[in-house]
Amino acid sequence: MAELITSLQNPRIKSLVRLRNRRERDRTQRFLIEGYRELRRAVDRRVPVETLFVCEDLFLGSNEPQLIHDARSTGAEFIEVGADAFTKVSYRDRPEGLIAVAHQFETDLSSLESAPNALYLIVESIEKPGNLGTMLRTADAAGVTAVIVADPTTDPFNPNVVRASLGCLFTVPLAIASTGDARSWLAESGTRIVATTPDTSTLLWDCDLSGPVAIVVGSEQYGLSREWLEGAHDRVRIPMGGDADSLNAAMAAGVALFEAVRQRSRLLPTHNGEDNGS
Amino acid sequence: MAELITSLQNPRIKSLVRLRNRRERDRTQRFLIEGYRELRRAVDRRVPVETLFVCEDLFLGSNEPQLIHDARSTGAEFIEVGADAFTKVSYRDRPEGLIAVAHQFETDLSSLESAPNALYLIVESIEKPGNLGTMLRTADAAGVTAVIVADPTTDPFNPNVVRASLGCLFTVPLAIASTGDARSWLAESGTRIVATTPDTSTLLWDCDLSGPVAIVVGSEQYGLSREWLEGAHDRVRIPMGGDADSLNAAMAAGVALFEAVRQRSRLLPTHNGEDNGS
Repeated sequence: MAELITSLQNPRIKSLVRLRNRRERDRTQRFLIEGYRELRRAVDRRVPVETLFVCEDLFLGSNEPQLIHDARSTGAEFIEVGADAFTKVSYRDRPEGLIAVAHQFETDLSSLESAPNALYLIVESIEKPGNLGTMLRTADAAGVTAVIVADPTTDPFNPNVVRASLGCLFTVPLAIASTGDARSWLAESGTRIVATTPDTSTLLWDCDLSGPVAIVVGSEQYGLSREWLEGAHDRVRIPMGGDADSLNAAMAAGVALFEAVRQRSRLLPTHNGEDNGS
Repeated sequence: MAELITSLQNPRIKSLVRLRNRRERDRTQRFLIEGYRELRRAVDRRVPVETLFVCEDLFLGSNEPQLIHDARSTGAEFIEVGADAFTKVSYRDRPEGLIAVAHQFETDLSSLESAPNALYLIVESIEKPGNLGTMLRTADAAGVTAVIVADPTTDPFNPNVVRASLGCLFTVPLAIASTGDARSWLAESGTRIVATTPDTSTLLWDCDLSGPVAIVVGSEQYGLSREWLEGAHDRVRIPMGGDADSLNAAMAAGVALFEAVRQRSRLLPTHNGEDNGS
């Protein structure tokens, strides 16, 4: 029978809380996964969960015991935490009674599998964890081959990335690399680099996105670096019709990715769309 | 010379803070505008600013005096607040030294101007202010004719809507209405209603969005109501390729709006796109 932790001074709780801090995540190569959906996706994708902190009183649904069983069967340690202490260590307004400590997984470019007609999202130096998480969720929905985070400012293992991605951090193949390494890797695989920028006359939908392609989006504040802009095969812009003249970085990534999805759907032989006159 | 307020007990400060509360906003028909960009857009669009709370020590740029001048010339009262007090009443991590109290503006359907070939975004019962704000910002970028919030759950005058919209709450024509009134109004103007839903086989890009059209998106948790789904001329879905099988509601709105923008750009005579073989 596991002991019940009720004190925030407990060393296991203290080490849990320290993982909110990037330096501690980098040092230990661990990170936090909070919430049912997020942990479900992590366990399904065999993310190595080391410890599971659980507070049954806070469960929102009825599927938690199965998830806990699945996590424990892969070797995760199980620790029960009282509701008061759990609520205090939770990152959520409405805690769901599940926080895991997991090993950071491999994010080398070499861990990505090659794919014919690949569609990559390249994210350069995004600053806000919420934006990076939304991009991962959107990239998952668009069915990308992989997301590559180039020269990261935000740590992809930040708890707010896990949360905003709804666990898509675990479902989308992910690599972290320098801009130089990412560009070399894309060149080797014959992938066309398409940079998004307001400073070009080419509209997004006038660019052929149907072959192997990497769509590159820049940081919220500075956009793309010269290295990505000048090294791109195409530079495209999303036309702005309004006053504010900007889209959120994650929104720009989503609009570009789904334009690629649209163009690719046009290539399927069974399609009934506008282009073949049906 | 204006007095300098340094106490949180000051009645002007207390009435400012109360406007974070929806009931108080409804009762007084006032709301808060914080931040340089947001207030700049409000003043440019002649949103009636009643009082301007200013802390010069917190200014981030050099354009604030001009903005204050512009706001005061429309009759706004000017109140100086000490840095400590201002930081405490600010809604921001990094306050910019500007918070205004403004009159809520007209949001009746009758306030919307008609437009040929209109493009509307209809937002039903969105729950998160951040999502509604992002939708307003995206709708501005897409150059929509107006946004109509149907059966609002979130108050569009919530400070987090102002913030996430970056002030596009003031640049995009906006109406708030019941679903019944919004549908009647759209029917009268001969606008095609296109509902977004995962439960249809029609893909977004197989639907003609080039005429007068209203794209309708539902709430984060429940999607669209039966009334919108069954009353729609078309039901369309954004195809999902990944594991998580969902897009954020604001992202879905953005992808749909920019598909409409794409189709409309195809109608322009000077266009050099794929469809005319150039």
